[in-house]
This record gives sequence, C-alpha cells and structure tokens, in this order.
Amino acid sequence: MQPTVRLAQLPSELRLLSSRNSIRTARPLSSTSRNGLLSRASGESFSRNGGILEQRRAMTVDQLDSGRDQRERVVVLGSGWAGYTVARALDSKKYQTVVVSPRSYFAFTPLLASASVGTLEFRTTLEPIRTRRTNVDFFQGWADAIDFKNKKVTIEEAVEDVSSSQALVEDRHAGETKAQRHEREQVGAKKGTCFDLTYDKLIVTVGCYSQTFGTPGIKEHALFLKDVGDARRIRNRILACFEAAALPTTTDEQQKELLNFAVVGGGPTGIEFSAELHDIIHEDLARIYPELIQFHKIAVYDVAKKVLPMFDEKLAQYAMDTFKREGIAVKTNHHVESLRPGSPREKGASADDHQVYTLKVKEEGEMGVGMVVWSTGLMQNPFVAKAMGGDNLYEVPKSFRRINDPSNDPDSLSWRVKTNAKTGSVLTDDRLRLKLVGEDGSDKKPEAILNDVYALGDCAIIEDTQYPATAQVASQKAYWLAKRLNKNDIEKAGFTYKNMGVMAYIGDWNALLQGGGSGGISGRLAWIIWRGAYLTKSVSIRNKILIPVYWAINWLFGRDISRF
Amino acid sequence: MQPTVRLAQLPSELRLLSSRNSIRTARPLSSTSRNGLLSRASGESFSRNGGILEQRRAMTVDQLDSGRDQRERVVVLGSGWAGYTVARALDSKKYQTVVVSPRSYFAFTPLLASASVGTLEFRTTLEPIRTRRTNVDFFQGWADAIDFKNKKVTIEEAVEDVSSSQALVEDRHAGETKAQRHEREQVGAKKGTCFDLTYDKLIVTVGCYSQTFGTPGIKEHALFLKDVGDARRIRNRILACFEAAALPTTTDEQQKELLNFAVVGGGPTGIEFSAELHDIIHEDLARIYPELIQFHKIAVYDVAKKVLPMFDEKLAQYAMDTFKREGIAVKTNHHVESLRPGSPREKGASADDHQVYTLKVKEEGEMGVGMVVWSTGLMQNPFVAKAMGGDNLYEVPKSFRRINDPSNDPDSLSWRVKTNAKTGSVLTDDRLRLKLVGEDGSDKKPEAILNDVYALGDCAIIEDTQYPATAQVASQKAYWLAKRLNKNDIEKAGFTYKNMGVMAYIGDWNALLQGGGSGGISGRLAWIIWRGAYLTKSVSIRNKILIPVYWAINWLFGRDISRF
Repeated sequence: MQPTVRLAQLPSELRLLSSRNSIRTARPLSSTSRNGLLSRASGESFSRNGGILEQRRAMTVDQLDSGRDQRERVVVLGSGWAGYTVARALDSKKYQTVVVSPRSYFAFTPLLASASVGTLEFRTTLEPIRTRRTNVDFFQGWADAIDFKNKKVTIEEAVEDVSSSQALVEDRHAGETKAQRHEREQVGAKKGTCFDLTYDKLIVTVGCYSQTFGTPGIKEHALFLKDVGDARRIRNRILACFEAAALPTTTDEQQKELLNFAVVGGGPTGIEFSAELHDIIHEDLARIYPELIQFHKIAVYDVAKKVLPMFDEKLAQYAMDTFKREGIAVKTNHHVESLRPGSPREKGASADDHQVYTLKVKEEGEMGVGMVVWSTGLMQNPFVAKAMGGDNLYEVPKSFRRINDPSNDPDSLSWRVKTNAKTGSVLTDDRLRLKLVGEDGSDKKPEAILNDVYALGDCAIIEDTQYPATAQVASQKAYWLAKRLNKNDIEKAGFTYKNMGVMAYIGDWNALLQGGGSGGISGRLAWIIWRGAYLTKSVSIRNKILIPVYWAINWLFGRDISRF
Repeated sequence: MQPTVRLAQLPSELRLLSSRNSIRTARPLSSTSRNGLLSRASGESFSRNGGILEQRRAMTVDQLDSGRDQRERVVVLGSGWAGYTVARALDSKKYQTVVVSPRSYFAFTPLLASASVGTLEFRTTLEPIRTRRTNVDFFQGWADAIDFKNKKVTIEEAVEDVSSSQALVEDRHAGETKAQRHEREQVGAKKGTCFDLTYDKLIVTVGCYSQTFGTPGIKEHALFLKDVGDARRIRNRILACFEAAALPTTTDEQQKELLNFAVVGGGPTGIEFSAELHDIIHEDLARIYPELIQFHKIAVYDVAKKVLPMFDEKLAQYAMDTFKREGIAVKTNHHVESLRPGSPREKGASADDHQVYTLKVKEEGEMGVGMVVWSTGLMQNPFVAKAMGGDNLYEVPKSFRRINDPSNDPDSLSWRVKTNAKTGSVLTDDRLRLKLVGEDGSDKKPEAILNDVYALGDCAIIEDTQYPATAQVASQKAYWLAKRLNKNDIEKAGFTYKNMGVMAYIGDWNALLQGGGSGGISGRLAWIIWRGAYLTKSVSIRNKILIPVYWAINWLFGRDISRF
C-alpha cells in the first residue's frame, strides 16, 4: 500500500509532481489556512461565522489555481455529445478543462433504446466524467448564470438531483421571477449550494429539453428516452406490464390495455425503440409468457405524413414493410391529444388497476395503454433563455469582443446574445463563437463576436446554416473546436459539416444504412454495420468489451427480466 | 417466425402438446367463456357487473388445472435461499410448482456486498424466477393468509411494489386490526388485487425482516444490505458523498462528516461490506478524488464483545489486525442510540447540507456521518404472526394431520401452529413439517404434525435444534426437502445439517475460511477460494460468465462511478 501523501501540505510545485496521475481536483475551501493558498485570494473576502458564509464564494480560482500551472481554464457546461467530446479532446497540457454538468456521466444515446429493453445493460451506455485516467475536473451542478464581463459562471450544485438522469421537460425553477431567482442564489451562496467558477474560455453545450407541446398528461405520465434514467423506467415498466397481465385477476380487457404500447414520434429514436420492444417481446417475453403475446400491440404515432424523413423513400418504405411484417402499426397523420391515468372505462384515476393509462388520439379516440414513450420534439434549454436570452443585457469589455464595424462601437452599448427568434437557439459564427448584438436604445444594433465563449450542440446553431440537431453534428463540431483550440488556429477556416449518413435499427436483426451522399443498404448487412459502428464509437475499452459480451449473453440466454 | 398458437382455444391435452416449452402460466380469468374452462369452476360463482367482481375469485385451480395434468401442486411462498432452491429442485414431472413472492427474482446474497460498491453489477447477483427454461409458475404477490382446511393461500398482488427489492423492517399493514384486514381483503378481491391459490403441498419460506430494535431513526435513515434495492441505494450514496465532498462549497467539517461511514453489525455481512467499502475507496476513489481520501473514516459498531463470533479466535484476530492495517475502526461494546438527518452542529434537519446524518453512539456521543449501513438483527416475518401465529386457531381435518397420541384426538379441538415463544419462528419437526398444538380450553394441548405444509429458511426452525439462520442451512434444508418429495420417502430419515464452514472477505484481496470441523485459512489463498466458491454456486451460466468478466474489468479499468 502506498504511503498516504498529504497533498494539501506540500507547496504547489511539489503537489504536481507527487500527484500520481495528472488528476487535479478542486481543493475544498478550508477555514484553516493552507500555506499560500488563501493568500492568493483574488481580492474577494469572506468570513465564517457559525457556519454561515457572509459572501458568495468565488474561491474556485484559488482552488483550481494551484493545479492550473499557466494553463488557460476552459469551462465546459454540459456532458452530452458536444460537451463530453470537446472536454476529452482538449489538450490538457495547454488547458485546464473543467466540466460542469448536473449528471456525472456521458450517455451514449444511440444505445439507449437497446438498454431500455435489456439488450444491453445501462452502464454499457454510460461513460463517467471522472475516471482514474481523465484529465478533466468536474463539478456536479446546474449552470445558472453567466457573467461575461467578469468571466464567471454561477453554478447550483446537483449531487443528489435525480432529475439529472432523466429527460428534462421544464425549467426546474419555472415561474420564478428575477427577484426570486436572485434571492435563491443569495440563499444558495450562504448554504453552499451555489458558487461561482471563473473561466478563461467558456464552452456552452447545455443541450435541449424534451418538447411535449403542452399536450396534457404527457409530462406527468409518459416516459421519455433521452437518458439512462428514462431507459431504466421504460425497462421496468414493460416488464411490470407483462407481470401484471399474468396475474389471475387481470381480465382480458385489462391485459389488452396493459400490453398496448404506444410510441409517439416516427424519427430514428421512436422507430428504433419500437424495433427493440418488438425484439424483447418476440425473443424473450413470448417464451416466458406464451399466452399473453396474442394480446400485445405496438403502435407508432406521428403527426407527419411519413416516418424516418431523413432516409430516402426506398429505405423508409423498407422499414415500413418490415414493421408491417413484425406487426408494428405505423400511424402517420395522427395527433396525440392527451394522456391520463386509469383505463378508458373508468373516468377517475384508480391506483389499483395496474396503472393502465388512457391515450387520446384525435383520429382514434380513447384507448387504454400500458405505456407511452414520447420521443419527439426538442425544446430549447431554459438556461439559454435565462442566462443568455434576449432580455439580458451585458457589459462586454472591448477586448472581449470583436466588432464587425469598428467605427460603430461606442462604449455606451450594452450587448445581448444573439438567438434565433423562433427556436431560441444561440446563434454563433462559423467558428462557433457567440454572436452579440449591441443595444443602446437606437436602431443601430451593431453586431460583434464574443471572444472565448463558444456554443455548440443542440442548444446552438451556426447562423445561416440548417445542420440538424443530431449527435453527429455535435460531435463533429466538438472535435473541430478542440482541434482549433489545441492548435490555436481558429482564424484559419470555419467549421463545415460532413454528413456521414444515418442509421436506424428496425428489428429482427435488420437495419437501414444511408450514406452521406446517396444510396444505402438495408437488411442484415446493415445491421452488422450498425452494431459494429456503435461498438467502435463506444468510448471506453470497458464498454467495448462489455457490449459484445452482453449481445452474446442475451442472445444465448435471453434478456434478464428482473425488476428492482 | 413461428405461427402464433392460440392456446386458449385448444382442449387441455392439446394445450400441453403444443406449448413449446413446458411453461404453464396461469390463464387469466375471462368474462367471455372459454370452452370448458368456466364450467370447471369449483363451485364458487361470480359475476361481473360493470367491472366489479362480486366475490373473491378462487379460479386459479381452474386456470392452472389445464396445465396440471395429474401432478400435485406445490406452492412455495418466497423466493430466497430456501424457496428458490426448493422450487428449482422439485421434479416438474411429479409436481406443478408455483412460486409466490413479492419480488420477481432470487438474490444471491453473499455477493450483495460486492454489488453495493460496484465490484459486481447488480444483475450478476440476481436470478429471475421466470426464465425461458424454468418449469415453475410464478405470481408476484404477498402471501396474506392461509386456509389450512381448504388448502388455499390468499395473495395480495405486488407487481409495482418497490419495497419488495429492499430490506423489510415493518409489517406493510402495521397496526391494522383484524376487521380492517378483512375489509382490505374484500376490497382487494373486488378490485382484483387479492386472490386465492389452492395447493396440494405448501412450502412456507417467507424469510425474515430486518430488526432495528426500535432504534430511533434507523428505519427511516439507515441503509440496509438485504436485497438488491438496498445495494443500489448504498452504491449511489457512497458515490454521492464523495461527489458532494468534492464541491468547492463543502467545508472541511462537512467533508469529514460526509466521508464518515458507519457500519452497524460485526457479523459477516457488516465485515464484508466494510471490506468492500475499503476496497473501492482505496482502489478507485483514492485516484479519482485524491485529496478527499484523508478525510474518510470507516467504523464498525457492535454491542457484542467481539466481531465475527462464528470464526475461531485466531481467524477473528487476523481479521481485526487486517482491519486495523486498513484503517477500519472496529468498535465492539458500542451501542447505537439514534440516527437523525442533519449535522451534529445543526439541530434541525436541513435539506441543503448534502444530507449528512447525525449518529448517536452511547459510548461516543453524537457524530456526523454520510451513511449508516445497518446489517444486524433479524425480525420474525409479520406474515408468520398474522397468518400462522398463536392467536389463529384452525380447523384441521383429521386426514390432514397425524397426532402423536391418537387416543387424545377429539373432533372438538382447534389447532394452532406451534411457534417459538421467544423468537416467533415457526416450529417444525425434523421433516420440516409444521407442528400443531390442539386447543379446546383445557390444559391437554395435544401435539400433531400437519401433513403437506412445510416451513424452512429463516422463518422456521426444527424444534430442539439451534441451526443458525443462514443461507447454508436454508439451502441444505431446501435440497433435502426437494429430494424427499421427489422420491416420496420423507418418512425415511429426518434432516440433519452438515456445517460446511464459513467464509468472510476482509478486504485487500484477503479472506477468512473456516472449515466445518476445525482449522481454517486466511489471506490471499482464502480469498481465491472465496471467489471460486461463489462463482461455482452462482446459479446461471449467464452469471458464471458475467461475474469473472466484471471482476476482471473492474480490476483493469476501475469500478464504474456513474450514478443514475
């Protein structure tokens, strides 16, 4: 066993040498002085008085400073495809990367549909931000506000927040006025649940929320498929529906309702989930509950005229034919109106009817369902509106920005972040930098670029482009940005997206594959490529081993159906 | 794809032939008549009226009948070491086995400590009751009452009951009077949440609850380690404590409190859990949070004079020395008095202090802790008291029982189940059959044996023996009983327990191993045997593959620390 090195007692240079890996974590604030640490405070004072701090702490500059060592600090907000990718790709010799995210891991979203039925285990679709080998620091919290002038982010801690593992559908502080928010932050600072983090560069990759279009009952009773917590709830729900249907006290009608599965959204997520659901029912549940299978139904609903719009006609039609053969109903031009607990025959919600739900579809009326999976629609992240949105005006020092027209740059201007009026997305230039619009009451509205603040992923869009909000775009942007920052050549050329194509699993070991240009394949070969591609893209060796192990084991022995 | 066979439409003999595996599941009651099914109703009538049944259903005789085929039905209550083992070992050609349990799986308890820190994944410690290959039927529910005369069990369904995956500490219907209980069952019958199941033989293996000795706050705030749901909560809690301690707003004092882990109970469960906790901290968390390790503490508390009492002096001392070297404090002769939320410095519970708790130990006073794991004490299952306990008097037909003294057997006798006055355990003879005591108001109290009802596992004890309440005893009894029933030779000889020894993991890849006779080994070799033994005993090939894969992967890459 190695001797315990009491790192806090060593001077900072030695701390770097003695730290066995190059992991530098934030040192906690201590009321007992550590040599040299507190004297480097950046000027903000604080005092402890019976456990209550009298001022919001801005001490992380101090804490991370000792591990900073002349590097610039890059703060990444978010741990999705854009944030996680850029954080890992940044050169740790040049940058001290700090990830701030309400969840402690990155979710490999293409495999979530598989995890939601047990084809893979949940952890094989996750990569923790903190590992023994990474060089990124991490705080688990929600970004709450950005101070562009002082280059700091306010963070609300989220260590015990379970909502961080599930699809988000609404602002967690919805309806809060500006005054209430300010008070909450003050109280939070005192209690230690809010703190500030300074940055040299900021990368905003907060992603999007799930859009329910205000459909009554969806937020409360539907299941989503955006994150691992969702996948877990779906898996438990499917299996509970079958187990409840197997009880001797369940009537035929209740069985049909329990085993009626509705999927809303005909894009790749909804289609792949329906395919996986079909697989588990026909490969495993049919053998475990042989007499219930006749009662089950899967239906995919979408308001559009056709599903899988990103695929060409021929492939989409192949998918439809496959679904038809598999018994999955595809209902385009259908509109979901509401969802409520209880069966259609009972008007009031009843807790004892195995939680059957009533789904109301405009073209079909009411029907009893066991589960509704909502996989459609992105809603802009409330953080963008709150912390960067149109109402907020910022003082931005001249050196922080570059203006298109230097003659039109009075100091009196305040600046707001440019966002898309319709979608609310943050608008960036083709170097992913935030765009600013100057306001001084007049009509001039000069535009500028904000240095050192970047936005990518679902929450942002390059102005005048229409790249879709997909993992592929986010990932390509992230790699591009990390490269530019590592080489310090962001002026060279802007980002361009290369469409590498799309894939979708459609059940029974068949898939669709469409290349970036044209042409595509379907069927078993596409499925092999589909699995191979995701295996290759899996981040860690751990999961590269576990994923094929689970594929093999679940194929040989069946998927596990325990619920806990 | 196989054509769907509509089994409900075939006569029963053909149903057996056409069912691809020999799985027979309960056919649900249908309001539409199925040929022949309803006319075989055992005399109890029912009618449906707007969705409400007017009488408790006893239809499962009908439903399972069609799959029964001259076999006797054995109903097993519980899915632990005793129940799961006997259910799997019974010959499905002779017996139709039906398992009734509130949880849908068997938990391999020796590996729960490993799962609770992530050395293994949760599902590697589970075996589902229903698989593609088993020949047992299953209902997910709580046994509520037994009618010995009519040979039936009343079951309350539990498909969505999450408490079934966690340690149980109190009767879920605590404080209910007999009248209330009767009403609940009536309402349940109408709603379909309660139903009856008839049996030819009944095996009671309901296990025990966890005993908190009424210690204030334990039930609400401590974590247990009896089942997989517990392991999951513990794992998330340990990691959350470290992540919270890593926030810049956490003070030194809060860190020490968050990382102060208390384990109550010095038996194998408590010791093994402390060892596993030590391992994850020193092998993984020390590298991920290098500066927090100095703050952590692990302490094991026990009221007894020494821990690991089932091991001989030398081995127990070796364990103590190992713990001392690992920095785990062992505090014997210590009494836990209470547990409350909030830190010792703040009297009221505060939701924002990262949920530090205050543990009060008589010999030490109050201290802040991040987590208390309670792994001591078994409490008799409330089902035993309610459904079989001393207050209940039963009519037991003469043919159902054998009396010791035939001359003393008036028909006027009512019978109660014999239980241990002090512990409440069910008393059985050495053939695991229930013992009865006759009551007629007089002092005579003749004793008898109840045929066809057996009890084993933690809830029962053979009269005049003192076999401990362990998995080993339960497992041996279960195999013995299954064998006797398969061979129909239960009169031959009674059950005898063969002590195969005990093992315990003590951290740092060291273990203790003590044979049934005397002598034992400790250290690395014992650890290899410890792992090998559990690997061999793992039930399914799936887990026999996954367990070593996870041991290898976690050793190479570290344990996963994502929380969701």
